[in-house]
Amino acid sequence: MVEEVKSRIVVQKYGGTSVGSAERIKEVAKRVIRHRDRGESIVVVVSAMSGETNKLVALINELNPTGSSREKDMILSTGEQVTIGLLSLALEAKGCPVISYTGPQAGVKTDNSFSKARISQIDGTKIKQDLSKGKVVVVAGFQGVDAEGNITTLGRGGSDTTAVALAVALDAAECQIYTDVDGVYTTDPRMVPEASHIPKLALEEMLEMASQGSKVLQIRAVEFAYKYDMPIRVLSSFDEGDNGKSTLVTREEDIMEEVLVRGVAFNRDETLLTITGVPDQPGVAFKILGPISDANIEIDMIVQNIGEDGSTDFTFTVHRDDHDQAKEILSSVGDKFNAEKVGGVTNIAKVSIVGGGMRSHAGVATRMFEALANENINIRMISTSEIKVAVLIDEKYLELAVRCLHEAFGLDKP
Amino acid sequence: MVEEVKSRIVVQKYGGTSVGSAERIKEVAKRVIRHRDRGESIVVVVSAMSGETNKLVALINELNPTGSSREKDMILSTGEQVTIGLLSLALEAKGCPVISYTGPQAGVKTDNSFSKARISQIDGTKIKQDLSKGKVVVVAGFQGVDAEGNITTLGRGGSDTTAVALAVALDAAECQIYTDVDGVYTTDPRMVPEASHIPKLALEEMLEMASQGSKVLQIRAVEFAYKYDMPIRVLSSFDEGDNGKSTLVTREEDIMEEVLVRGVAFNRDETLLTITGVPDQPGVAFKILGPISDANIEIDMIVQNIGEDGSTDFTFTVHRDDHDQAKEILSSVGDKFNAEKVGGVTNIAKVSIVGGGMRSHAGVATRMFEALANENINIRMISTSEIKVAVLIDEKYLELAVRCLHEAFGLDKP
Repeated sequence: MVEEVKSRIVVQKYGGTSVGSAERIKEVAKRVIRHRDRGESIVVVVSAMSGETNKLVALINELNPTGSSREKDMILSTGEQVTIGLLSLALEAKGCPVISYTGPQAGVKTDNSFSKARISQIDGTKIKQDLSKGKVVVVAGFQGVDAEGNITTLGRGGSDTTAVALAVALDAAECQIYTDVDGVYTTDPRMVPEASHIPKLALEEMLEMASQGSKVLQIRAVEFAYKYDMPIRVLSSFDEGDNGKSTLVTREEDIMEEVLVRGVAFNRDETLLTITGVPDQPGVAFKILGPISDANIEIDMIVQNIGEDGSTDFTFTVHRDDHDQAKEILSSVGDKFNAEKVGGVTNIAKVSIVGGGMRSHAGVATRMFEALANENINIRMISTSEIKVAVLIDEKYLELAVRCLHEAFGLDKP
Repeated sequence: MVEEVKSRIVVQKYGGTSVGSAERIKEVAKRVIRHRDRGESIVVVVSAMSGETNKLVALINELNPTGSSREKDMILSTGEQVTIGLLSLALEAKGCPVISYTGPQAGVKTDNSFSKARISQIDGTKIKQDLSKGKVVVVAGFQGVDAEGNITTLGRGGSDTTAVALAVALDAAECQIYTDVDGVYTTDPRMVPEASHIPKLALEEMLEMASQGSKVLQIRAVEFAYKYDMPIRVLSSFDEGDNGKSTLVTREEDIMEEVLVRGVAFNRDETLLTITGVPDQPGVAFKILGPISDANIEIDMIVQNIGEDGSTDFTFTVHRDDHDQAKEILSSVGDKFNAEKVGGVTNIAKVSIVGGGMRSHAGVATRMFEALANENINIRMISTSEIKVAVLIDEKYLELAVRCLHEAFGLDKP
């Protein structure tokens, strides 16, 4: 029987920059011990030391860039494994009882989509036993194991996902994501210096911010947190005293202040694909887009136009990394349907406004379009949800668009 | 049910230099494919790329050199994991079906002596299945998993041991050890340029050569091969065409030519420890040496002298790395027994002559002592077996001793 862990469980995640050197790892150890001394039970999730993954990728590319993802995952998963051992040694050196686990050892089960695996289950029994003995548990982010015992990696930003999923499995009080910024801002401060810090926002809003391109938290991690109602706190690992700013991302009822637009998110990660002159018949969308999904390529925005001649056009966006593969699939689908043309555009960007307050206020989208029109920025595609409006524009207008929207919705610092 | 593997199974092991760069890994892939094209079923065991382990050790030492071996093994085992993925990608790039396994995935079970674990069992079922499907199987050397699922490393030269143990588990035809030399020589050619290549020698002789300091094969690997009668072939990975020299190490009845002395082995790895003036009573050897063994420190040569006053002295050798720890243990044992003195000497070396022919010839040891006496080399300790005579001398005489013995037993090239 597992002894109950009586103290407050906190999962802390440190990214590559936060563990980028022996010195930085010592700083992380200090912080972990400070939290433990307060009586918290700490589980730490770490990424590979910054730069390490790139070195491994360079070796992979030298030998076989198009080789099997299983072997690439075998190689890439070593980065985090090194970090867990090093952080554990640093904690030991300060007298802190600790044990490290790789993803597979920690019971992080995934499907077998190598390089972008999804977590299917986490068995937290072993970790809870360690916590109840007073140990700090250090877990390798970004990785897991499939049903056949193969090592898998979770793909982009996977360590955030590991952290949140572990927090859920362990019923943690919160999941703390330590990064090189001290929280979420109304937009990227590197693009708009007037961007303001957001101390608290709703998981739903963060979900939209992340999916629209805010790099602070990884979308899949936020999805996990949203689904299981796990509060996430974003903090800077460069803040020495735990007294700095942070952003708490939690469920909506906890958010006092309701603002119309919370922030402006953007990304350059998407590219546009079009297929025109396809006969319009029932199921055509499925037949055209199905093969893309089957290749495990995520489609973001989709627009379908039906022409007067009974033919139809599809326009949709995919991640930049998947562009070539998606275009190839689309071309062979196009041949089958005698499509008029298959094309792709890569120099585009997406900019979005996000805010829970939109729900109860009409005219937000109109105000957005007006602001963009005032700057003569042409909109290629629009996609909306309850709490977001996203538009696709030419990449060259991106900075202009972000700045004018940030100002138009009064997000600049007071 | 596992399909039977009908072709000849060969296990090939490549050390750190042989896989030291992407270029070298491509060369290994070529050789593996050449062998596979001949109809052999190939299992490849690899070490970490040369230099990688040292980088990891440097990081470990920066954080906590005396930290727990479990965490160090967690870190060090990543080196081989990278190599198996890279070699698999290189093989894939040449159209060769392949799968890689870490030690734990390959079913290499060990005890839990982290940093010097011993293999307890290998389940070859999965690998045999892969071989029967025509795949090359690439396995990480040097590592395994204990009963609790912790990653362990096998310590010094562990990849050789993995290779031989796998060869035994898979009932392979032979275990090929690729290294930077083309076989076993009568002594180290870097010290004695006249050393001759040995095309074939007995496992027993190799066992003594390895245990006496020959660096070509790791002692534990030879022990494994000896116990399970697995032929080992030592080859150079720098020989491009598979036409070069090699040394086949096999059981004695296969060796035609019986020579008196096969070779001269030496090492600087041992240090001497002495404890004097211990009361001579039954069980004293156990009480004094037991705590050293309990600390998992191997004792090599032992001499006990009984004095006239009813007290006794012990002199023994341990590996240089274990000297400080052993001396500390010995001191506390010494206190308990009111020993006169506990001392240690580190500037010593061991030189040995090895040969199956010794068994049936008297006077070999005498001839050895004579040759050393002619050069005024003082002997500190002697240890003999059926097929070996080893002596401990001052380190500064080592090269002189090796050269004069090599000549005295007619081992120089014709």
